Amino acid sequence: MTDNIYKKIALKLHNYSKILIFPHVNMDGDCLGSSAALCHVLRGFGKEAYVLADDVTPHNLDFLESGVVTRDYDVFDEYDLAVLVDCGSRSRIGERASVFDRARERAVIDHHGVMENDAEFNFGIIESSSAATAELVYLIASEMGAEFTLPIAECIFAAINTDTGSFQHSNTTARTHKIASEIYGIPGFDGNRIVQLIYNRKSLGAIQLEGRIVSEMEVCCGGKVVLSAVTQAHLAETGTLMNESDGIIQKLMSIDGVEIGCILKEIDDKTARVSLRAKSYANVARVAQKYGGGGHMRAAGLTFEGTIGEAKAEIAKALEAELVRSNDEK
Amino acid sequence: MTDNIYKKIALKLHNYSKILIFPHVNMDGDCLGSSAALCHVLRGFGKEAYVLADDVTPHNLDFLESGVVTRDYDVFDEYDLAVLVDCGSRSRIGERASVFDRARERAVIDHHGVMENDAEFNFGIIESSSAATAELVYLIASEMGAEFTLPIAECIFAAINTDTGSFQHSNTTARTHKIASEIYGIPGFDGNRIVQLIYNRKSLGAIQLEGRIVSEMEVCCGGKVVLSAVTQAHLAETGTLMNESDGIIQKLMSIDGVEIGCILKEIDDKTARVSLRAKSYANVARVAQKYGGGGHMRAAGLTFEGTIGEAKAEIAKALEAELVRSNDEK
Repeated sequence: MTDNIYKKIALKLHNYSKILIFPHVNMDGDCLGSSAALCHVLRGFGKEAYVLADDVTPHNLDFLESGVVTRDYDVFDEYDLAVLVDCGSRSRIGERASVFDRARERAVIDHHGVMENDAEFNFGIIESSSAATAELVYLIASEMGAEFTLPIAECIFAAINTDTGSFQHSNTTARTHKIASEIYGIPGFDGNRIVQLIYNRKSLGAIQLEGRIVSEMEVCCGGKVVLSAVTQAHLAETGTLMNESDGIIQKLMSIDGVEIGCILKEIDDKTARVSLRAKSYANVARVAQKYGGGGHMRAAGLTFEGTIGEAKAEIAKALEAELVRSNDEK
Repeated sequence: MTDNIYKKIALKLHNYSKILIFPHVNMDGDCLGSSAALCHVLRGFGKEAYVLADDVTPHNLDFLESGVVTRDYDVFDEYDLAVLVDCGSRSRIGERASVFDRARERAVIDHHGVMENDAEFNFGIIESSSAATAELVYLIASEMGAEFTLPIAECIFAAINTDTGSFQHSNTTARTHKIASEIYGIPGFDGNRIVQLIYNRKSLGAIQLEGRIVSEMEVCCGGKVVLSAVTQAHLAETGTLMNESDGIIQKLMSIDGVEIGCILKEIDDKTARVSLRAKSYANVARVAQKYGGGGHMRAAGLTFEGTIGEAKAEIAKALEAELVRSNDEK
């Protein structure tokens, strides 16, 4: 039975009393939601548990903190179990690694296939076919016999919703929707309320920024490649931070016929961060690698040494070449 | 047992041989997807069935036609059953009402609570708590013992996905996700492919238009009201049609603190169409009614006689007054 692994972990978790949960740096919805949900579950069994975070929680995910997040490295002197959530490596938790190392035992719950051998785990699960780490937390909690309270439901749902792009990404499966269905059945759960909190609390400046960047986009290669740049001037004019431009590339990818989308971010007058996406056949990881970056075939990134103008000219040429090459390989 | 109604309709449907299905005018994803799915189901039982449409199918929904849509009013001389889908009134099918009237018997499958008594139905279901008409078609087809082929799965999924805004709207329920889960289990089904077809085939001009309209938005009432206008000049410059601006109002509503969003559309130099949305407490239907329009508390519309500039000035004032009034009523 494939479900056994969740049960095994559930049985193990019952054995510990003091537990610290470690989300990865640059917390996203799945990482924070999964960590908080697990913490609520463990507390429901009378355990002492905290989520130990470093980062500031992104504004739209603030409701996930729900009384379980601490930033105090000394919340425990000694403790039984450290759980790495939504990542499989000590290197992904920054300075908190020193606290992680103080645990008597270590576990991991993750859905990223990548793992560095920089930590020894007593038990855990890394299931890359899972749409979100929160699915694993839900299944483990079910096997533990947890009572699914409203905070647990909201954390799991927010985590799954953000990691699947509202059930749109290709990682979404029958199981994802089955779990969502069960969560909708939890008394008091209001999915639309969570959606409003996550997606409809953007700053005015962020929406103005998106409008500017989208209306300034440049199209080349007969409409197959679109590029746009976010400059420090854009940020100053709209009163935004660079991370508020993160989702704009999706807008470029929604255009019919576009194969490659590119957003160039002016970090300073000598450095640009470049995000690349491909829709169906181009391999943008090759372009990223050429400039020392990396990623997947359809989503990659790189850092360019030069002005934003130089970056745009150079990367546009590289994308044109990649388009020809990937067309040849089709 | 609440499920009985689906079974009753399922048993009835087995009694007819020649069936015409009528989606409402201005076809949307749920109406076309539900109609096409039902048609495939009926054909699977050896029946002669067609979806009779008038409109041009929207570009992003073209894949739903899947060989079942006809625009020939004379596809049947005489026929057994007319099924009104996703609407409950003869007045919603335009000129096809004459063909509807030729049927020996009539049925309705709808999830809108509103019904005019302008047609007599032999049987049917109007279930306003259903997120989409497609949920009802799915449940009825299940009771019929239908084989869920790939086209049926894709039509049902597209219909549910569009009517729930990718499972984000408040109409989404546990049942919605349960059905989605079952559809993901149908061999060959690829939800992401459907999502790409529906949402990621926008014209370049439509995306440029959105960028322009969003970056030109005006904010008033301390950030609680946002307005933007789509002019004929915008359309000419981006090579778009007015209906390509339809979703832009959602972008305005995603701003933190905004209570009322307003998009004004310049139809000609004497007429503007105005769309209004409210987030949580304002009653924009009152504003619409003041100008002879109508709608719901949180989504309403009106036609304004005057230039787009006059419309904007006047409606902004009316929205400001409504905001004060609805604040007082809180």
